[in-house]
Amino acid sequence: MATVTLLADEELSPKAAAVFADIRATRGTDYVNNFWRALAHNPDRLEAVWSQLKQIMGPGALDPLVKEMIYIAVSASNACEYCCHSHTAAARAKGMSDAMYNELMDVIGMANQTNALVNALQVPVDDIFRAE
Amino acid sequence: MATVTLLADEELSPKAAAVFADIRATRGTDYVNNFWRALAHNPDRLEAVWSQLKQIMGPGALDPLVKEMIYIAVSASNACEYCCHSHTAAARAKGMSDAMYNELMDVIGMANQTNALVNALQVPVDDIFRAE
Amino acid sequence: MATVTLLADEELSPKAAAVFADIRATRGTDYVNNFWRALAHNPDRLEAVWSQLKQIMGPGALDPLVKEMIYIAVSASNACEYCCHSHTAAARAKGMSDAMYNELMDVIGMANQTNALVNALQVPVDDIFRAE
Amino acid sequence: MATVTLLADEELSPKAAAVFADIRATRGTDYVNNFWRALAHNPDRLEAVWSQLKQIMGPGALDPLVKEMIYIAVSASNACEYCCHSHTAAARAKGMSDAMYNELMDVIGMANQTNALVNALQVPVDDIFRAE
Amino acid sequence: MATVTLLADEELSPKAAAVFADIRATRGTDYVNNFWRALAHNPDRLEAVWSQLKQIMGPGALDPLVKEMIYIAVSASNACEYCCHSHTAAARAKGMSDAMYNELMDVIGMANQTNALVNALQVPVDDIFRAE
Amino acid sequence: MATVTLLADEELSPKAAAVFADIRATRGTDYVNNFWRALAHNPDRLEAVWSQLKQIMGPGALDPLVKEMIYIAVSASNACEYCCHSHTAAARAKGMSDAMYNELMDVIGMANQTNALVNALQVPVDDIFRAE
Repeated sequence: MATVTLLADEELSPKAAAVFADIRATRGTDYVNNFWRALAHNPDRLEAVWSQLKQIMGPGALDPLVKEMIYIAVSASNACEYCCHSHTAAARAKGMSDAMYNELMDVIGMANQTNALVNALQVPVDDIFRAE
Repeated sequence: MATVTLLADEELSPKAAAVFADIRATRGTDYVNNFWRALAHNPDRLEAVWSQLKQIMGPGALDPLVKEMIYIAVSASNACEYCCHSHTAAARAKGMSDAMYNELMDVIGMANQTNALVNALQVPVDDIFRAE
Repeated sequence: MATVTLLADEELSPKAAAVFADIRATRGTDYVNNFWRALAHNPDRLEAVWSQLKQIMGPGALDPLVKEMIYIAVSASNACEYCCHSHTAAARAKGMSDAMYNELMDVIGMANQTNALVNALQVPVDDIFRAE
Repeated sequence: MATVTLLADEELSPKAAAVFADIRATRGTDYVNNFWRALAHNPDRLEAVWSQLKQIMGPGALDPLVKEMIYIAVSASNACEYCCHSHTAAARAKGMSDAMYNELMDVIGMANQTNALVNALQVPVDDIFRAE
Repeated sequence: MATVTLLADEELSPKAAAVFADIRATRGTDYVNNFWRALAHNPDRLEAVWSQLKQIMGPGALDPLVKEMIYIAVSASNACEYCCHSHTAAARAKGMSDAMYNELMDVIGMANQTNALVNALQVPVDDIFRAE
Repeated sequence: MATVTLLADEELSPKAAAVFADIRATRGTDYVNNFWRALAHNPDRLEAVWSQLKQIMGPGALDPLVKEMIYIAVSASNACEYCCHSHTAAARAKGMSDAMYNELMDVIGMANQTNALVNALQVPVDDIFRAE
């Protein structure tokens, strides 16, 4: 269980209900996942997080699938169980193949390994890496 | 300064020197960055990490540039100063535009925000996100 | 299950039993939560952690409720499931309202977002922020 | 140095310049710190982060000083050098006394200690801590 | 459930099956734990991770039991539930006594506490700690 | 610079001065490192952290050198620059050889790699790993 109840549709404030309607319309499914049902206790934050997510994760200079894989990488590094599950499902829905997922795991493992090595060794940044 | 000295070319063991030669040949530059000079105290690990990195970060189901951006996302979440600098430089060298970098920052910020919210609220994973 | 058994009252060493008695007296409840039952395998550490917690989390320059909210913020950032649950319960018991909890979530989300942005961008510290 | 240049006032886009003007007006100082100068490469994100920060960190159910201390706690747990410095300066400007800062350090240290213990021991959450 | 299915023996590719055979032979048990069954979707990575683990965690300048305790310390700091469980079991199988485990918990708690304090206070590194 | 000044000997309160005297006597050196000079603003915490560190890091079921290496592993995983430097220096003073340090780096890298993989894949804990 969460630290708050997960609000059912009939428990939503009008503002939260409007956000849920937009989530459903945007995603083309009636299913609204638990994250939003927990956030719905704070309708202003629900609206802010959803509108931010909708804008950021949409098409742009980066492909939405690439964005989902970046999200998985952050979530794994932060040990966020829920986010690993939800964004892996989202990445698959956007076309992530098994081969892509395998390579994503490779990069996540490699990056966490070398991050720890570099932090342990406290390697100084090369001058050539710095922005002007 | 690192916790170890950064080995100059003339201080390398033969095994480490061979790895440095491969780094130079693979990257097409004479410059070998500090991470490898710190790792070179352990030639077996130097060789293992380099061969793993070379294989993982190369072309495959994911584009090398996408892999670099995933690396940046992990490094930012782990607060690895060196890795943020080195992989941002690498991503730019592989064609990351300012627009792409901006969107990468957006996703990294968003993911860290929602990871923390989900962890604070301890949102339970939806059944539909689970494999099987 | 934990990596150790959770000790029942009748399994406690005399030292651990004395700590449990103080926990009960201090909190005014017979309930002793699982954290202490796991720590009780190491009575010296149990006593040290409990006495430290009792002193630190009590009244002082900061209100005990403020301290509980700070504890939640740390626990969310560290992905500590148990601690998010136990300190959210403690904060509510000390008077945290829904409005306060909502704002706490806002700050936790915001801070994790900008921490990641700053780490990714490696923003140098302004001279005016430094002591002296 | 950051991974991007820190934009000077004369390098800002009109949108970024408007945000800087609001930062100055809101804070009552001409000084705009480095974080915003790094973010200014992405005027949309600059505006979004600033407006979010301004709203979240202002008065509400929690005191702005309490919010700054929560921010410090998150930043310390995430090893964000810049954020520790900037939010400690902000907390002091909002009235954080040395006694308050000392207690904040105590809680941050304590929470990180017990988070790690709980994670190592994998203590199961007590039923009484769960919502509902 | 994992984000992937856990492969049963009869679902393994020939390469993955060979790795499982080596795991069984090396460990002297028929039991292959879930981590390898999840990794087996990527036989190349399975082989690479297993061969790396087998080499690194074996005898050397450090005792294998010491290595397992270091592994637990990292896993607790990273909030990795699975790794805390699996490496605590491994350490016990290699002879970790209750007294050793208690002291390990003490060090893990202490290190996480002072890490957070140092990060919050941003203590500058003493010159005498730096390698030549 | 730290967020607080580093107190010189002549700025210490009597309580803090007594702790410094004990640090010097225990370590057999006149040098007191920056961490204690930052903590000295809070003499009660200085005394508590020092007495805890002195007790925990001393001889017991685990060798003091093993404890220092565990400390390094935690500090690397938490990206604590100061702690990586100070505890690497301490481990060397207690006899850590280059070969031992190399293997420590190997384990730290490996553990952070598999922690991230396990978190990404959300591998369920095997029943046989659980206590009882």
